[in-house]
Amino acid sequence: MIVKTVEWKGKHLRVLDQTELPEKMVYLNCRTREQLWEAIKMLRVRGAPLLGVIGSLSIALEAQNCSIADPKKYRTRLYDTIRYIATSRPTAVNLFWGLDRVKKVIDGAPDVSVKELREMIVDEALSVMDEDIETCRKIGDNGAALLKNNSVVLTHCNAGALATAGMGTALAVIYAAHRQGKKVKVFADETRPLLQGSRLTAWELMEGGIDVTLICDHMAASVMRDKGVSCVLVGADRIAANGDTANKIGTYNVAVLAKYHKVPFYVVAPLSTIDPAIPDGSHIPIEERGPEEITHGFGKRTAPHGIKTFSPAFDVTPAELIAGIVTEKGIVRPPFRQNIKKVMK
Amino acid sequence: MIVKTVEWKGKHLRVLDQTELPEKMVYLNCRTREQLWEAIKMLRVRGAPLLGVIGSLSIALEAQNCSIADPKKYRTRLYDTIRYIATSRPTAVNLFWGLDRVKKVIDGAPDVSVKELREMIVDEALSVMDEDIETCRKIGDNGAALLKNNSVVLTHCNAGALATAGMGTALAVIYAAHRQGKKVKVFADETRPLLQGSRLTAWELMEGGIDVTLICDHMAASVMRDKGVSCVLVGADRIAANGDTANKIGTYNVAVLAKYHKVPFYVVAPLSTIDPAIPDGSHIPIEERGPEEITHGFGKRTAPHGIKTFSPAFDVTPAELIAGIVTEKGIVRPPFRQNIKKVMK
Repeated sequence: MIVKTVEWKGKHLRVLDQTELPEKMVYLNCRTREQLWEAIKMLRVRGAPLLGVIGSLSIALEAQNCSIADPKKYRTRLYDTIRYIATSRPTAVNLFWGLDRVKKVIDGAPDVSVKELREMIVDEALSVMDEDIETCRKIGDNGAALLKNNSVVLTHCNAGALATAGMGTALAVIYAAHRQGKKVKVFADETRPLLQGSRLTAWELMEGGIDVTLICDHMAASVMRDKGVSCVLVGADRIAANGDTANKIGTYNVAVLAKYHKVPFYVVAPLSTIDPAIPDGSHIPIEERGPEEITHGFGKRTAPHGIKTFSPAFDVTPAELIAGIVTEKGIVRPPFRQNIKKVMK
Repeated sequence: MIVKTVEWKGKHLRVLDQTELPEKMVYLNCRTREQLWEAIKMLRVRGAPLLGVIGSLSIALEAQNCSIADPKKYRTRLYDTIRYIATSRPTAVNLFWGLDRVKKVIDGAPDVSVKELREMIVDEALSVMDEDIETCRKIGDNGAALLKNNSVVLTHCNAGALATAGMGTALAVIYAAHRQGKKVKVFADETRPLLQGSRLTAWELMEGGIDVTLICDHMAASVMRDKGVSCVLVGADRIAANGDTANKIGTYNVAVLAKYHKVPFYVVAPLSTIDPAIPDGSHIPIEERGPEEITHGFGKRTAPHGIKTFSPAFDVTPAELIAGIVTEKGIVRPPFRQNIKKVMK
């Protein structure tokens, strides 16, 4: 079974607590905005597309459960909740996007009753969730054409169901191929420093019944040489107009290995990840992280006191190393600048 | 100061307890063969060249401190000690080599007095140590010619002073250049799964006054692209007659990255690492490790129960990716098959 990260239960949201993974599968029933705020803040829910969905649903939950009868006070409470939820993760762009989708509904209907507004908001939030599920499904179906029976896929970080409300992005391709009856074997990079590959990807693929083998990141080189890797599938945080792709640190490493071993390297992401305003990868800012994730990776200090570290959160894979970008509207092939324009129309 | 791993103190051996690194710098004064056995067994001393030296010195310590006056019984005790120390790490080839150096001295002098034999054994063991120190020094001097002022070096795992009785191998090159007054900046791969780069290399380079920055292994790709890396220096576990080199897992990953970024990749190792009986890398057996090193980084589970892992201890870097092999007799350049033959004469 492909894991469900979030479900709308009418009076509460059922969300998977990802901080308990991979040890335990714990679902939280969130009934208040305070519970949701805490769940976002503490990274119990994470992943860019999922945060967009959660943003919308959190306002729908408040709209549903808030007992204020006065329309003006009801609206005030909802606007206040939007501002409140936005403070849970002030750098999460997708969260704001999800909140904004609902805010526009409220803005656009100044004169409706509480009952009507409640219904409109819940409808909008459920649409946001359904769109995400549908986008994942289409991405999966489009990408599955890349995988023959007995394929071997290498992936990095977690571009899976755990990052979305649906089947994920890169991993959706694997799930879709699997559902088509194709045998797919996956090698998952553990993805230092935060081990999303080990904690999340390995776990959700096992849950999904996929044959998965966990490796340390640099073992990808040996795996590509010796294990018959058919292709690499990774997600994306941001794609420039020329196809240059920012994704979790280490993605560029995999892309270079793929080039050397003549293994096709695919980026799998919704069109919303493409930012046509960014001409190329050199314009994508790369956040640098503090030393603790490297020096205390496992709760215990494993590096000398005072050691300098270099810890970029992302790297940029140049378009020349990318065989294609799998989207909900099909696979975009080089030349990317032209073909991205076409698909974005 | 370059760290000293072992010192002969006449009646005891002073050895650095490497299991306490990088948190504490603890020296053990080993006075008995039992203490040394435990130190080897528990990996307090490790590193192939260092184990050879420790093997010889452990017999010298017993020869020095044993109070048996009868020559025959004295010899019996020494042979017994050789067998005993060999049980501490039954797979450590260098340990046996070091024990054998001393055994040959005993074998070759059946009729000498206790006093004479004692002196012969101590002399031999100190020679083994001095040879290792001298080999490291020569390797360092030969390799330092590769480094200009303001060089940036990337290294993987620990081929340092901590693995030898002297300055190390790959790191000896850095120490030698530093002593020549050249400014050298080092990026050290942390080297999953056991983090020798983080725990050992980063620590000993800091102790040695070298400017070192710790990175996760896959960050090497970004570092090579963005940080002006001059060359890669790594050690070797075994070198085939054609130059193919087995070293810590992840070395091949670095070699592929170096090729793509046009960064010269050097193997640094004593001639004793070259095995002319092995025609090429395909004949080097690669040990596979159990899953715990990947799934339980330092005591805590970070991967799902029952996950499959692939965890080779070494990988083989093909000769075509190697710019040169730095040895105590100079830098061996391609074509390796011919030039290795020449230098081994």
